[in-house]
Amino acid sequence: MRVVIIGAVACGTKTACRLKRLRPDAEIILIDKDEFISYGGCGMPYYLTGDVSHIDELRRTTFYILRDKKFFENIKGIITLTKTLAEEIDRKKKVVKVKYLESGKKEEIPYDKLVIATGSIPKIPPIPGTHLDGVFTLSNLHDAIKIKERLVNKKVERPLVIGAGFIGLEVVEAFGESWELPVTLLEYFPQVLPRLIDPFMSRIIENHLKEKGVNVVLNVRIKEIVGENGKVIGVRTEDNFYPADLVLLATGVRPNTELAKKAGLIVSPTTEGIVVNERMQTSDPDIYAGGDCVEIRHLISGKGVVMPMGSLANRQGRVIATNIAGGNAIFKGTVGAFILKCFDMAIGGCGLSLETAKSEGFKDATYALNIQHERAHFFSTGCSYYSLVFDKRTTKVLGFQAIGPFTDGTLARVHAISSILPLKPTIEEIASLELPYSPPFNTALDPIHVTSFIAENIIYERFKPIDWETVIKRLKERDESMLILDVRTPNELKDITERYPNWINIPYQFARNKIKDLPKDKDLIVVCSVGARAYEVARWLSAEGFERVYVALGGIVLPKSWGERF
Amino acid sequence: MRVVIIGAVACGTKTACRLKRLRPDAEIILIDKDEFISYGGCGMPYYLTGDVSHIDELRRTTFYILRDKKFFENIKGIITLTKTLAEEIDRKKKVVKVKYLESGKKEEIPYDKLVIATGSIPKIPPIPGTHLDGVFTLSNLHDAIKIKERLVNKKVERPLVIGAGFIGLEVVEAFGESWELPVTLLEYFPQVLPRLIDPFMSRIIENHLKEKGVNVVLNVRIKEIVGENGKVIGVRTEDNFYPADLVLLATGVRPNTELAKKAGLIVSPTTEGIVVNERMQTSDPDIYAGGDCVEIRHLISGKGVVMPMGSLANRQGRVIATNIAGGNAIFKGTVGAFILKCFDMAIGGCGLSLETAKSEGFKDATYALNIQHERAHFFSTGCSYYSLVFDKRTTKVLGFQAIGPFTDGTLARVHAISSILPLKPTIEEIASLELPYSPPFNTALDPIHVTSFIAENIIYERFKPIDWETVIKRLKERDESMLILDVRTPNELKDITERYPNWINIPYQFARNKIKDLPKDKDLIVVCSVGARAYEVARWLSAEGFERVYVALGGIVLPKSWGERF
Repeated sequence: MRVVIIGAVACGTKTACRLKRLRPDAEIILIDKDEFISYGGCGMPYYLTGDVSHIDELRRTTFYILRDKKFFENIKGIITLTKTLAEEIDRKKKVVKVKYLESGKKEEIPYDKLVIATGSIPKIPPIPGTHLDGVFTLSNLHDAIKIKERLVNKKVERPLVIGAGFIGLEVVEAFGESWELPVTLLEYFPQVLPRLIDPFMSRIIENHLKEKGVNVVLNVRIKEIVGENGKVIGVRTEDNFYPADLVLLATGVRPNTELAKKAGLIVSPTTEGIVVNERMQTSDPDIYAGGDCVEIRHLISGKGVVMPMGSLANRQGRVIATNIAGGNAIFKGTVGAFILKCFDMAIGGCGLSLETAKSEGFKDATYALNIQHERAHFFSTGCSYYSLVFDKRTTKVLGFQAIGPFTDGTLARVHAISSILPLKPTIEEIASLELPYSPPFNTALDPIHVTSFIAENIIYERFKPIDWETVIKRLKERDESMLILDVRTPNELKDITERYPNWINIPYQFARNKIKDLPKDKDLIVVCSVGARAYEVARWLSAEGFERVYVALGGIVLPKSWGERF
Repeated sequence: MRVVIIGAVACGTKTACRLKRLRPDAEIILIDKDEFISYGGCGMPYYLTGDVSHIDELRRTTFYILRDKKFFENIKGIITLTKTLAEEIDRKKKVVKVKYLESGKKEEIPYDKLVIATGSIPKIPPIPGTHLDGVFTLSNLHDAIKIKERLVNKKVERPLVIGAGFIGLEVVEAFGESWELPVTLLEYFPQVLPRLIDPFMSRIIENHLKEKGVNVVLNVRIKEIVGENGKVIGVRTEDNFYPADLVLLATGVRPNTELAKKAGLIVSPTTEGIVVNERMQTSDPDIYAGGDCVEIRHLISGKGVVMPMGSLANRQGRVIATNIAGGNAIFKGTVGAFILKCFDMAIGGCGLSLETAKSEGFKDATYALNIQHERAHFFSTGCSYYSLVFDKRTTKVLGFQAIGPFTDGTLARVHAISSILPLKPTIEEIASLELPYSPPFNTALDPIHVTSFIAENIIYERFKPIDWETVIKRLKERDESMLILDVRTPNELKDITERYPNWINIPYQFARNKIKDLPKDKDLIVVCSVGARAYEVARWLSAEGFERVYVALGGIVLPKSWGERF
């Protein structure tokens, strides 16, 4: 059996190596246009930070052998054609037409089974100036090397990043923290990590970035990347000019499907990904595809999505190898689980954000927000923020977002939820999860539990939630139909009741007896630091016959974490 | 509705508070023989270490109010009878007979619903000397205060701990690390954490304890705690005497069910726990029970177990409150998820250990062991060890154990597995889990994936595993029918091939061509550092027709982590 694999970064090499282990007799030919193959692309930002000291560290096995052409050929027994461009697939003849980039020679390579793992290509915004010297993407090791070279040689004084997605945030950290450069981050959407997490969560990150000295500019319309003598000097937006001597385009990627399209394979018109079945077969059963170039099913929305993640590419490679070897493995789809480090924060999530859930047709989608220390207070490393998105009608969980200090605590919570999410659990099932407990690691009821309890209280209408954006808006409008009932102790309050006339304080300890005299003709917004005391007081108010009672989700800690002066 | 709750630590207070929130009209009476109620018992070892500076820190809410009688009465609106002993339950009259310990007065308290949350009592080994001054258990705050007092007043020079379970290991750390005392740990079983984790994992911890200066003595038969003038001076075992001026009995707990038995409620003769249904009702439907005193179902073995864990007690309290309030909540059972800190290690697990699985009748139970860095090597904080226990016939997962550096990485993996384990996943389902990835947190294929892949390779007999205990035994016996084929590079090897005549080295890089000449009439044990290279070479050997090929699970790192001189 002769298997040709086009693309040798994540999915392609995983397929090749596993297939060779399963079927040592198989003849496997791995083709890549580059000389760098089988590298840890997700580690590139950490080459820029300096955590990875040499680019080869991203190319080595755990036992320190370089994963180059020689490694694959001599050790793995896989024919490896680097610097070789696959120009065309002739499905009738079952050959791949390649061009050896060094010699210019062309050849036809026959296959029994073919694997397309051509990855993604960066989306370049359609504006003038993207060709200028000093404008980069970070899509392969060559890019990483070039950017690092400029940093090391002190040729960068004012870096600017366009796009506040995963790569954007990771690279901003590299520029700002490791290289101590004044960095600007421009984002088209009115938030960082758009679509991935909801605005009320993203504002926490935005504030953290600002505290770290990043010049975060959201909602911008970029007109042009401006150059002088062929070199970038800045970025012009609709209403401003941002000087820069290095511009990184982190504006996303799209599936690299040119070959597949030319070969007549079905490619999704909406996602642009190659259409595959659960066995990772394309519309031609002898051709498999995996990694960043394919469309997969989102297990919550049910829709096709492109999800360019190294972890999925690796898992898909395994599935392809098993199937080519005669087995029967399936890849059901994704819940889009992610985790990233952003300065001192860990940010993670899975499933749909509230915004995305609504746009995907979950009209009863809502959320529960929980802010707490991720472990016993005497071991605490700081506050964490958890948001469960759920369908209030079916009580099914739709998504989860978490932000916490840079520990593995956020990873732990996303690991738990993303493990169970494909099974479409209800909030009650999340509340019933068994999670290990010990004070150095978490609280007796894990943050996941507490978040699901808040969701349950919303489902059973034990309290009416209100979001801080609304509260702040009404506060600024001096809306007199609203009274903020702050149940914290006076020393937690500082001067807040002096600054806002409709902000009153009845400490939780005394509230049970003192709430009776409150006005019933106003909206009472009960607040405390994170919401636990406020919830309880809201229950007391309801028991006393108050009807216009709301609890501000996340407590006062939330708007404070946005940088609001509360 | 009048609800009486006996016991006010974890389950009892959780029931009371939640019920009051759900049914503000309910009259709730909380009874406890102690004055300390509603405290974080799992935090007691950290009061000894000093992480918790004052005992009241274990008694405060997150907003720093002391959870005492006054708190429950004035703020929560719950009648709270501390220093009050529940002496008898009269189920016909529906009253609890109590005795006020300070006045000696007795009273009958009527109930509509009763909750028994009487917790557990320490098992005291039936040996002489347990009454001596200086012999303690750590079962409540009074114990913790007394032990801490002795430490602070420099009255402890040679502490000794009996029992290497959770509490034993945590307290050993307090004595050894925080107080820098020479501490001895005695354990009846031939391993630490018996039944919870398997010997090949426990030896890693044992070695860590020894490296930290703990005098670990396993397999001991204690004859007597020896005193002089009423004060403890040491512990005599079958064959030794261990001097000690403080002895902590950490020999486990048993359910406190005296009241329940006297009231004629059904108590399990095997586990000694109060029998409850999934709604946490006892054999009397008006009486609920929860926490350390009840028997619950183990979701993997299907058997009744007693699982004294704070996290479960809290969740059960919620279930009881919901049901008393007229709802319908259920507690299905447990997979026994746990996590603990032990010096610089995090140790966690869930489900059944291999040993327990076999004794529970899973005769095809076996395991896969994976040793790897829990994150990208450039962010690594050290090696982690993962063991998946599974049924080779059904491929169902039975349990999981993890040991890693003291980060939340181990928590993350146990969180994921324990979330899904009640659904009885197969190994393939674990291999297909979607887990978020980024280099600062993990590897593209998470350690969970890699461990499940090893399990899969065992299930499909892609390699034959052999355990190191067998290998070491045969090595020491100079068994000439065995040849260890070490495929590491020469510089990883040091002098090992000189020390053992049947230990040969063919580096992985050159193995493919050089293995052909190896003898086919010997057992070839292929080893490398952790097993990845060994597995691949074993595949090559099989392809060459070798039949007596084995891979030593865990690689050479495993016996090294046991302290073996390899």
